[in-house]
Amino acid sequence: MPNMYEAMTDAELDAAIAELEAEADKVRALNLKLDMARGKPSPEQTALSKPMLDLLTSETDLTDEGVAVDNYGLPDGIPSARKLAAQILGVDAANVIVNGSSSLNLMHDTVCHAFLHGIGGEKPWSQQGEVKFLCPAPGYDRHFTVTQSFGIKNIPVPMTADGPDMDVVREYVENDPAVKGIWCVPMYANPTGITYSDETVRAFAALKPAAPDFRVFWDNAYCVHTFAEEGDTLLNIFDALAEAGADNLVYEFGSTAKVTFPSSGIAFMTASPADMAEIRSAFSVMRVGPEKIGQLAHVKFLRDLDGVHEHMKKHAAVVGPRFALVQEKLSAGLAETGVATWTEPRGGYFVSFDGPEGSAKAIVALMAELGVKLTGAGATWPYGEDPKDTNIRIAPTFPTLEELGQALDVFVIAVKLVSARLAKASR
Amino acid sequence: MPNMYEAMTDAELDAAIAELEAEADKVRALNLKLDMARGKPSPEQTALSKPMLDLLTSETDLTDEGVAVDNYGLPDGIPSARKLAAQILGVDAANVIVNGSSSLNLMHDTVCHAFLHGIGGEKPWSQQGEVKFLCPAPGYDRHFTVTQSFGIKNIPVPMTADGPDMDVVREYVENDPAVKGIWCVPMYANPTGITYSDETVRAFAALKPAAPDFRVFWDNAYCVHTFAEEGDTLLNIFDALAEAGADNLVYEFGSTAKVTFPSSGIAFMTASPADMAEIRSAFSVMRVGPEKIGQLAHVKFLRDLDGVHEHMKKHAAVVGPRFALVQEKLSAGLAETGVATWTEPRGGYFVSFDGPEGSAKAIVALMAELGVKLTGAGATWPYGEDPKDTNIRIAPTFPTLEELGQALDVFVIAVKLVSARLAKASR
Repeated sequence: MPNMYEAMTDAELDAAIAELEAEADKVRALNLKLDMARGKPSPEQTALSKPMLDLLTSETDLTDEGVAVDNYGLPDGIPSARKLAAQILGVDAANVIVNGSSSLNLMHDTVCHAFLHGIGGEKPWSQQGEVKFLCPAPGYDRHFTVTQSFGIKNIPVPMTADGPDMDVVREYVENDPAVKGIWCVPMYANPTGITYSDETVRAFAALKPAAPDFRVFWDNAYCVHTFAEEGDTLLNIFDALAEAGADNLVYEFGSTAKVTFPSSGIAFMTASPADMAEIRSAFSVMRVGPEKIGQLAHVKFLRDLDGVHEHMKKHAAVVGPRFALVQEKLSAGLAETGVATWTEPRGGYFVSFDGPEGSAKAIVALMAELGVKLTGAGATWPYGEDPKDTNIRIAPTFPTLEELGQALDVFVIAVKLVSARLAKASR
Repeated sequence: MPNMYEAMTDAELDAAIAELEAEADKVRALNLKLDMARGKPSPEQTALSKPMLDLLTSETDLTDEGVAVDNYGLPDGIPSARKLAAQILGVDAANVIVNGSSSLNLMHDTVCHAFLHGIGGEKPWSQQGEVKFLCPAPGYDRHFTVTQSFGIKNIPVPMTADGPDMDVVREYVENDPAVKGIWCVPMYANPTGITYSDETVRAFAALKPAAPDFRVFWDNAYCVHTFAEEGDTLLNIFDALAEAGADNLVYEFGSTAKVTFPSSGIAFMTASPADMAEIRSAFSVMRVGPEKIGQLAHVKFLRDLDGVHEHMKKHAAVVGPRFALVQEKLSAGLAETGVATWTEPRGGYFVSFDGPEGSAKAIVALMAELGVKLTGAGATWPYGEDPKDTNIRIAPTFPTLEELGQALDVFVIAVKLVSARLAKASR
């Protein structure tokens, strides 16, 4: 589809801009205060987990498989929570640690451990000169910030509809021993919403890293977060590793931040037995014990993987209509213009939107002016630098359906106006 | 009091050893399995906080001063929890962060931040060559392990009945810019149980560090943990700093680990506004949000400082008799022998015991053989090296009174036997 504004005559384009500016002025007069910025569950969603608060009382037996959960001990988490997390990730509970409420914090501490102490018997990353991380982009800004904070060089890798471009990944990983890791959200990726294909997952498992202390950071944050009738399926990376005869290659992370309560969920990680032994030892210095009472509440509430899926259906009923509205509004408003493309995920928290080259910053700025907060343009790229300035992350879960509809109407106007102005500026 | 065994004739000493060995054999035959190793509340104590679990239900309004606690946000903790923590520490809530359940983890991350990124506008510690920390000893092993894990050189400083020997501290801090910190447990110190005198606290506030990025790590872990009728009082370090016109000198930490539930309490820290601004910025990369639902439960349960003191009285009723039993058993068994000294704290979790030179490792080993686990000898010193091998940390809270009595009876036999053998070996 050609860019509608580029195809217009000068007079038509001026008229279109004038009309869009008039529409924008009307919006400006409404003094809206809307937020489509962060992947945050709506109050309707967090309310779904309130019954969890009834499950522990002063009468509850605070033991798990015979061990006290209300005292120090069990640094790997309570046995039943480790089993639940193992089911969610499809791995052996013996290799699972459940600790804290934030998987990002587990990732940070894992990078920190490798940086300061080294992994796999190698020297600390901090003593190996320049160290690099691959960052499939668009991706998750807070991943990139973690490695950046250690002075690690973040390198963008193109994302495709099947996951990161594995030719590029392989080229880096197998030839450059300074490449120590890659950030992945393999299912309902942040922000594209795509799920890595089986071929991509197998390509990860088949990597022969130049660095023995290279690891894939597999942030399976949205592994149970399907909202469509038919969800995606993700090949289990540890099954793929076994198939490939590989080991000590992947750290996998997950949490219930968007299953139960953001910031008050349970976070967990898994890896090979050898990698987990190192992590255990590192955590024994960094942390005391995990919040085991919260873990017990989670197990009583979610029970097992079936319980999780059942609960996630309730989230889907809240979230699904919001994502449908995004598709409806963007299609109705922009399909004919030829200025934009966007993803159509079946799960997760985001839609990834691409406007014309050089438009994203201007759209986000105009939206802010019109009273709608979006994720900062460029945030989805390492160092906040989107090379073509096209990508915007849409986070539709937090607003009400009505607010979301309003915000998307404004978004359509903003995209059109910025696109039309760009077309004019290029003449 | 002279060492009784040293004063004996050879024949008397041989008879004493034979008698003590017979007593030890009788104990060995009992196959005891007792534990006086870690500062762990007893089940009676953790049960005191179970009513907290009734205070949040599915009907509870999950907001705090109008802000949602069941979603992302409030990285400093919920306002009411910050106020509660501020009351406990006697500081301004504006300078308090409540995050996670482990103050040790907050300390680790603060050291990590200074090490990797630098504090007070100075270069990262990691780029300043050899960096040193002062470790008043005997002290808390897990403090020492944190700095050791960064390759920081731990330097023991003598402890007195009034706190660390401040002449030694001043000498190091004011002359050596490589000295970046000191580990302190200012109230009911781990393990001596003493509380720093006002003079000591003022001496800390008056320090003029050679390094602008020197900080006192003030771990006020036991600030409300009095079990005696009359407790100790600790001069507020921030009041002393204000008096001295000093600033940016102290990080203070605390938690409810031994108020409510170990590993499921709330942890907090405070410092000057400038220091806290740095910590906030560091935590915004390291962590997502704190467990705010647990914070709300804590506020509902403990309410305010009066509520905390009221609750701690219940702990005192459980813990007090255990500490009294330690004094009773040690006095009855060892006062006449002249081989040992020990502290008599009015709060906290430990009694610090010193036997003859070269006895501690042997006593702990013999105790293990007789079925009683003690904290490893040397653990209270940096690198586990107690230069005179005298110090043993007694942790009397976890066993029942009956078990504790048994364990102490065995301890008296072990101390006597090891002391008698040492006396013989030195002839």
